[in-house]
Amino acid sequence: MNVDAQRLWQRIQTLHEIGTTPDGGVSRFSFTAEERAIKDRVTGFMKDAGLEIREDETGTLIGRREGSEAGLPVVLVGSHLDSVPNGGDFDGPLGVLAAIEALAAMKEANVETRHPIEVVAFTDEEGARFRYGMIGSRGIAGTLTSEELYEHADANGITVAEAMEQQGLSPAAVRNAARSPEDVKGYLELHIEQGKVLERAEQPVGIVTGIAGPLWLKFTLEGEAGHAGTTPMPGRQDPLAAAAEVLLVIEREAGQKERTVGTVGQMTVTPGGVNIIPGRVEFTLDLRDVVEQTRDEVEERILQQAQEICRRRGVSLKIDTLQRVAPVTCDEKLQGLMREAADELGLNPPMVVSGAGHDGMQFTGCWPVAMLFARSKDGISHNPAEYTSQEDCAMAADVLLGTLLRFANEA
Amino acid sequence: MNVDAQRLWQRIQTLHEIGTTPDGGVSRFSFTAEERAIKDRVTGFMKDAGLEIREDETGTLIGRREGSEAGLPVVLVGSHLDSVPNGGDFDGPLGVLAAIEALAAMKEANVETRHPIEVVAFTDEEGARFRYGMIGSRGIAGTLTSEELYEHADANGITVAEAMEQQGLSPAAVRNAARSPEDVKGYLELHIEQGKVLERAEQPVGIVTGIAGPLWLKFTLEGEAGHAGTTPMPGRQDPLAAAAEVLLVIEREAGQKERTVGTVGQMTVTPGGVNIIPGRVEFTLDLRDVVEQTRDEVEERILQQAQEICRRRGVSLKIDTLQRVAPVTCDEKLQGLMREAADELGLNPPMVVSGAGHDGMQFTGCWPVAMLFARSKDGISHNPAEYTSQEDCAMAADVLLGTLLRFANEA
Repeated sequence: MNVDAQRLWQRIQTLHEIGTTPDGGVSRFSFTAEERAIKDRVTGFMKDAGLEIREDETGTLIGRREGSEAGLPVVLVGSHLDSVPNGGDFDGPLGVLAAIEALAAMKEANVETRHPIEVVAFTDEEGARFRYGMIGSRGIAGTLTSEELYEHADANGITVAEAMEQQGLSPAAVRNAARSPEDVKGYLELHIEQGKVLERAEQPVGIVTGIAGPLWLKFTLEGEAGHAGTTPMPGRQDPLAAAAEVLLVIEREAGQKERTVGTVGQMTVTPGGVNIIPGRVEFTLDLRDVVEQTRDEVEERILQQAQEICRRRGVSLKIDTLQRVAPVTCDEKLQGLMREAADELGLNPPMVVSGAGHDGMQFTGCWPVAMLFARSKDGISHNPAEYTSQEDCAMAADVLLGTLLRFANEA
Repeated sequence: MNVDAQRLWQRIQTLHEIGTTPDGGVSRFSFTAEERAIKDRVTGFMKDAGLEIREDETGTLIGRREGSEAGLPVVLVGSHLDSVPNGGDFDGPLGVLAAIEALAAMKEANVETRHPIEVVAFTDEEGARFRYGMIGSRGIAGTLTSEELYEHADANGITVAEAMEQQGLSPAAVRNAARSPEDVKGYLELHIEQGKVLERAEQPVGIVTGIAGPLWLKFTLEGEAGHAGTTPMPGRQDPLAAAAEVLLVIEREAGQKERTVGTVGQMTVTPGGVNIIPGRVEFTLDLRDVVEQTRDEVEERILQQAQEICRRRGVSLKIDTLQRVAPVTCDEKLQGLMREAADELGLNPPMVVSGAGHDGMQFTGCWPVAMLFARSKDGISHNPAEYTSQEDCAMAADVLLGTLLRFANEA
């Protein structure tokens, strides 16, 4: 049994039309018209596959296929449909569309599974709009509280809760999205690698052994705004100069460990006049490692030096934790099932580590989690140039299908 | 003869109502409703002083008082009404309102001058909106071309020309704003010091000997955007890390000369996701010195090191010159008249240098230029805390009045 490679590829292409940017990428943020449009389009694909559709209390789209035995826990399989600003076509949609293709292939072959299977397209995995991602998977894990929906706001000051209400969702009800561990057999996700390991190994798919946990910090530095022409250099308390020093510390400290990565992706300088010494600078830090202790040690060294830099310059420093996700170890039994499915297709998938965070991280301690990676051209992602070939997409979807057939038929 | 100190102070307070920010400052950018509102308010003050009102082709507001002898060149006196983002109440308005008070005092005392006098409130001195300031004074100097109005755009992509059209002005006509050198006797401006020299000398006013020329550069660094979690540190071409290095070079190089100042006041990081390595960073540099050669040497050293940093990091660097204004030497005869006027009031004004740029710089080679400074509390400006006391405002306006009476009665 195989997925319909042609249809999978054509659907990936068609989703590109939603939220297209002038640079040829896509921008689809949570609780926007673009997100609504892509969920509606994918709902149509789910219906074609005979799935029963619903959206849960965070807006996560779910398409269910019943199992042959009543009362068994459900297998969850999916990914997300939102994107980073000016992102690519594969990060997220591939996993959702491949899961739909797998269930469509079962339907077309009249194959049942013992356990029911649900394709899930999680709301806001990337966190692009509110700097707080994985909202849908936190909801299903039962760790999302309605209080925190009021604590995170977008660039226009709109909170998650307000944005949800604008889409007809009730922030007070998010706890109802939680799934009970007894009702879920496990979670499986196909995603692009976003790295170069598979490309170097010349393999279309890889089996993920663990996911690096992202730590997101927001640095706020405040100094003394003033006139660019009349404030001598020695007396300045310029928060941007302090930030520049901190940025170089981040780069150096993250670079000293093999697998640690540290990225400053957002920065705002206030008030922002050409001839005004800034009064305030805000920037974010995304710090990751597959080993939590290593990540925490690097964080500690960065914070210590940042405090020292700001103290020396007379600039105040405030650090907020936006999220702190523990690294995840993938389920070994599920890794075995993926390997069997890959073997059957004549593949020998390498074991890989995920530097990127994924929705599955939210399910640690809830139920088994496993991930499959598809090869990324040049390792590029979060960029319009993100690309996985038609053949690799189909091959990865076939491994997903074979894994689902095994997993959903287990006793 | 004295100005009406009470009325001057009350008018400074009342203008605070226009463009007020949540932080207690003011934001008044060119060709906006706020700018229109403040020009309308000041037009009323000019009418009270018996001035004949017009606005020239760039929107500069002009109030004229005729002289007693027909055909003599006009004395220009004034400042600007626009502000930086979240600026203070005195930078600009003090000079315009004090000039109106001086002419009102002449009117109320039935005193004529031989030469006509015009109070000018120049359009867009600060350059906050288009990163291209002194539009009104460039117009009067005759150096503003309609072509360049299409070259500078605000953060929303609206060019100066488009913004002018929205206010009913014709970009094609800006050359008509030019004043002929034979028709202008000289230009005089009262402005707050924006520094601490007068405060330390315990003097309410100072006589400006020269104005540091601002050089504004825009740096555009382009690297390779990518996923924060999956791109190892060694292979990155992060333009923000490169920018951080360049910022520290700017701070160090500008700090090595006593009077050079270098400021990075604007920075944008694109695409701006927490978990995306930036692809592009843009920032501005405002570099000044009263000695042009010193400024140019510092610029050269900064550019050389910036190029080296970007080359080493595989990041492209583009540098655009937004403006390059030569430092100005103030007219010595006018300095003498200011000193006489100050003497008469029992003052001994220090000679000071202006680190900030001013509209008068545009008139180099056209007609004599002179400036008077009023004491700034703590040297703060471009900030809501900007302050000059009521007594200092009145004293400075009186020196301006005495200077005008002398200058406009010269043979």
